[in-house]
Amino acid sequence: MKNIDIRKLPTAPPKGTDKSVSKGHLVSLRQELSELQNVFYADGRFGLLIILQGMDASGKDGVCRHVMSAMNPMGVQVTSFKKPTEAELQHDFLYRIYPHFPAKSRIRVFNRSYYEDILVPTVEGLYGKERINDRYKLINTIERHLQVNNIHVLKFFLHLSREEQAERIAERKTIQHKKWKYDHADNISDEKWDHFQETYSQLFNDCDNTPWHIIPADRRWYRNEQVAIILRDHLKGLGLEYPG
Amino acid sequence: MKNIDIRKLPTAPPKGTDKSVSKGHLVSLRQELSELQNVFYADGRFGLLIILQGMDASGKDGVCRHVMSAMNPMGVQVTSFKKPTEAELQHDFLYRIYPHFPAKSRIRVFNRSYYEDILVPTVEGLYGKERINDRYKLINTIERHLQVNNIHVLKFFLHLSREEQAERIAERKTIQHKKWKYDHADNISDEKWDHFQETYSQLFNDCDNTPWHIIPADRRWYRNEQVAIILRDHLKGLGLEYPG
Repeated sequence: MKNIDIRKLPTAPPKGTDKSVSKGHLVSLRQELSELQNVFYADGRFGLLIILQGMDASGKDGVCRHVMSAMNPMGVQVTSFKKPTEAELQHDFLYRIYPHFPAKSRIRVFNRSYYEDILVPTVEGLYGKERINDRYKLINTIERHLQVNNIHVLKFFLHLSREEQAERIAERKTIQHKKWKYDHADNISDEKWDHFQETYSQLFNDCDNTPWHIIPADRRWYRNEQVAIILRDHLKGLGLEYPG
Repeated sequence: MKNIDIRKLPTAPPKGTDKSVSKGHLVSLRQELSELQNVFYADGRFGLLIILQGMDASGKDGVCRHVMSAMNPMGVQVTSFKKPTEAELQHDFLYRIYPHFPAKSRIRVFNRSYYEDILVPTVEGLYGKERINDRYKLINTIERHLQVNNIHVLKFFLHLSREEQAERIAERKTIQHKKWKYDHADNISDEKWDHFQETYSQLFNDCDNTPWHIIPADRRWYRNEQVAIILRDHLKGLGLEYPG
């Protein structure tokens, strides 16, 4: 059992990190990712599920746009999970998720995921402790089951400060090409923010069969570079080969 | 009624087309596509279905890799239709296609499509003329129905010469990182090739509620540039705007 408290972890890049170096690095990382995805697809032994979690405005969409786009869309798909619909709520929470797990050869990005089905009920007090604990157990079991079936799971938390979030939400209200992203639901109380941070911390401690990568996300360029490095290293570590 | 015979249409770039100019152009086209897709997503009024058809090795995968990858995978998805399975054949031919039509805000690329359900039965003589004619009519109706619902349909045929195809299939047998793409089914008789060309010609004449773009595909760089131009122009013509 680990003892992570994300409130103690940095949201800013380490001192001395250089923006233009990072951005240059991303260009070469994108090239590597493009090639690695091609051999991943051809190799056919593995699938890969990438989970993106983070508070509103933490940059989940930005990671799709700037990192995942490096790879051929024939083999990479993004599924965004929004608030469940009435019809979806008539099923168990995994029902709407399951059809989206990746096949062999494929990379699937979950922009939000079944972790919302722990986070929201916990913070909103929708269900009792027992029901939520069952979800922890089920998620752990499912992730192990995926791994056993050669569907790897790579989990990212984009760790944003409350201050940077406030600035980004303000941008959404004023900058013309960002207005469409503004949602009143983005504005939450300090108390709720804190409860989310606490619940995330618990997730990282209790759902670590497959590791969480906690990415300082206050700077977009650093966030993109770090996600790309971890993804590149994971793909590289698989020993992928063109068959035949 | 048009009277297209693709056997009379060029598969090579026009004389004087310059490879390095085309490749440079693709870089700026990709930038434009990235921005246009972003506003397409935000605008929300339209969906876009892009159909890629072509003989084996004509470069459908290459177009996904080099053109479609310019756009954020959050809003762009590729669906590849292979030979129908036994289970799929228990349904009408549209059954497996329908769930993949794009929603508003989304771009969906069909790598092969329901047009295979005309092409293959015609060339292989699987069904009689009447049943195949019904498919023509149904496809025309469906594409009109999509357009009426603001789901635009953009159809590309990657027009490859028999000689260039032979070279590419030979490459698949010998070049290590291309071997995995080789499939015995790629080798078809001259007679069958000709029957496909004839059937494609008929498609272009009879299924033109939404226009076909016939792309000379013997040179990859020219093919990519042309597809990107048409896609860019289509998106530009929509008068897209960021809402709010």
